[in-house]
Amino acid sequence: MRIAQVAPPFESVPPARYGGTERVVSTLTEELVRRGHEVTLFASGDSRTSAILVPTVEQALWHEKPPLKDFAPYWAITLGHVWEHMEEFDVVHSHLDYFAYPMARAGVRPVVTTLHGRLDLPEQQPLYRHFRDVPLVSISDAQRRPVPDANWVATIYHGIELDEFTFNPQMGGYLAFLGRISPDKGLDTAIRVARRAGVPLLIAARMPLPHMQDPNVQVDWAYWENEIQPLLEGRQVELLGQLAGKDKDEFLRNAAALLFPVRWPEPFGLVMVEAFACGTPVLALNCGSVPEVIEDGVTGFVRDTEDELVDVLDRIAELDRTRCRAEAERRFSPAAMADAYERVYARIVAHDTPEATRLRVSTAAGR
Amino acid sequence: MRIAQVAPPFESVPPARYGGTERVVSTLTEELVRRGHEVTLFASGDSRTSAILVPTVEQALWHEKPPLKDFAPYWAITLGHVWEHMEEFDVVHSHLDYFAYPMARAGVRPVVTTLHGRLDLPEQQPLYRHFRDVPLVSISDAQRRPVPDANWVATIYHGIELDEFTFNPQMGGYLAFLGRISPDKGLDTAIRVARRAGVPLLIAARMPLPHMQDPNVQVDWAYWENEIQPLLEGRQVELLGQLAGKDKDEFLRNAAALLFPVRWPEPFGLVMVEAFACGTPVLALNCGSVPEVIEDGVTGFVRDTEDELVDVLDRIAELDRTRCRAEAERRFSPAAMADAYERVYARIVAHDTPEATRLRVSTAAGR
Repeated sequence: MRIAQVAPPFESVPPARYGGTERVVSTLTEELVRRGHEVTLFASGDSRTSAILVPTVEQALWHEKPPLKDFAPYWAITLGHVWEHMEEFDVVHSHLDYFAYPMARAGVRPVVTTLHGRLDLPEQQPLYRHFRDVPLVSISDAQRRPVPDANWVATIYHGIELDEFTFNPQMGGYLAFLGRISPDKGLDTAIRVARRAGVPLLIAARMPLPHMQDPNVQVDWAYWENEIQPLLEGRQVELLGQLAGKDKDEFLRNAAALLFPVRWPEPFGLVMVEAFACGTPVLALNCGSVPEVIEDGVTGFVRDTEDELVDVLDRIAELDRTRCRAEAERRFSPAAMADAYERVYARIVAHDTPEATRLRVSTAAGR
Repeated sequence: MRIAQVAPPFESVPPARYGGTERVVSTLTEELVRRGHEVTLFASGDSRTSAILVPTVEQALWHEKPPLKDFAPYWAITLGHVWEHMEEFDVVHSHLDYFAYPMARAGVRPVVTTLHGRLDLPEQQPLYRHFRDVPLVSISDAQRRPVPDANWVATIYHGIELDEFTFNPQMGGYLAFLGRISPDKGLDTAIRVARRAGVPLLIAARMPLPHMQDPNVQVDWAYWENEIQPLLEGRQVELLGQLAGKDKDEFLRNAAALLFPVRWPEPFGLVMVEAFACGTPVLALNCGSVPEVIEDGVTGFVRDTEDELVDVLDRIAELDRTRCRAEAERRFSPAAMADAYERVYARIVAHDTPEATRLRVSTAAGR
């Protein structure tokens, strides 16, 4: 099949370090190429891929210096590149959030979009009232909840490159936190939980982005200064900075458990699955995708409060590290993800989705 | 001709008060309907038009309470509406800045874009390197300067509803300022110039928008608090708030001159032409479109510095109020604007623009 994968232009595919969307796009692209598909990847020019690369920008925009002020023109540029080549594909797979919806409606080839973000913000409601026709893939069932009537064609969990993670049957001596420094990810909770239980916590964290004009970035910096920095004083908690590759593998596999105390509607949570791949179970707050990813009492503990997380810290040994790795291989492998996407592509190309019907109805209704 | 006019969804067409783009879209739409064209207007649902209205949102987004945080999804929604109806038109006229460029490249009907904003920001450069094919109309020759190699098909000056402005042959006793409170518009200069010359200044100004998350809005509020409020103390300067309709007409026609001390690359400057329509000349700093709109020494004075503006304040009587009105009728009428756009539409429909050639070359070159 001739498949276009369309990534955002902000981070390379795969990402230099942080960038969940770009990591998944890379994993899926490599697996599809391995299966013999003719894959074209639209991504920043510093991407590395076995597919044909169409560079949408010279280098990933997050790394531009000085930082760019306005990213909006680059969505148009990315779409402009895809339109130039659209007829060369059987199916276009967009990772551009809603920016490709007009193209999905009007394109000469079918376009399916995987949503990588949260959908519970108020602006999403008019968007999905209008775009009932464009076919969508969710990355967890929880992600769909705010917009149940959109044209969902499948939930497909992310796959990760399992070879990059080493199974360790032995439970390590510290708790691990890995993620952005952002209130969403709950690092403050992780620190308090570890302190209260008297267990060492190692933190592999990405600092907020330098784009101070972005209000979300401002929130993250304020969180860092006001809530995290004061908590870092004293022993037992160590900040390692951002980890990738072998360092990340080592960090995750030698932990007793990963702490994942999110307090936002986490759409997927790639790091949970990366921990599983090392055999490391996950202790998480019950938000978004968490109960879909973790089997409570087997591959981790899912709890509702900080207090309850403290309570399970002395029960980590009950969890099954072998089962964690097995679940990663069964549910979160590149093969499992690519199998599911191949089925979606086939349905979209055959117009075997609700969208075909809905679009006809919508056009017939006219204005 | 079957023409689609596509307005942004932020303000109604025509605008409640402030909104240059929406005012021009309204004027052009009404004139095209008057000429017998079949015009469809894509705009917010609270718009008033003689054309067929396709509401892209229920009401103009600037008036949503509480203020919206993220406008980006509404660009996609607006484009989604246009795609649904595109085959019903001979030509689509977009006022959506670059957001419609992918559609202009790929659409089943020709799309021409009028640019209403400044083009000198760094993000514009990669945009126009990529989109060399989409046909563009500038609203002044000055506006084009930062991107000379884009596919410019015409410069068309804005027309205004001349009937809404009353010619006054008599020179009034005050200076007028009308515009946003924003460093770009130079209200601080206007106040200092009037004070130094001892002439009363009346200010009809729109306060900054309530969207405090927008960095541009933050700049405007800081300007208001730090630079304008202190200058307003004392006599001789009066702040009237925002004016529209008959109040605006009265305000402009009874002025000795309009002060237009802009310090940004003004793409057009609608208020200069509104003043002319009342017979009121304009004293301006030499930025952007200013020397194209004002004939120095005849319909106003164009100067380079604040000091030079003070110097010309006792020479206002030399300017020709009758000629100001005549120039508004000759160069800035709805008819003059519509004549020019009809020529552009005819060329675009006949593919008689550089774009047709360039697109073929670009497609042939492939990737």
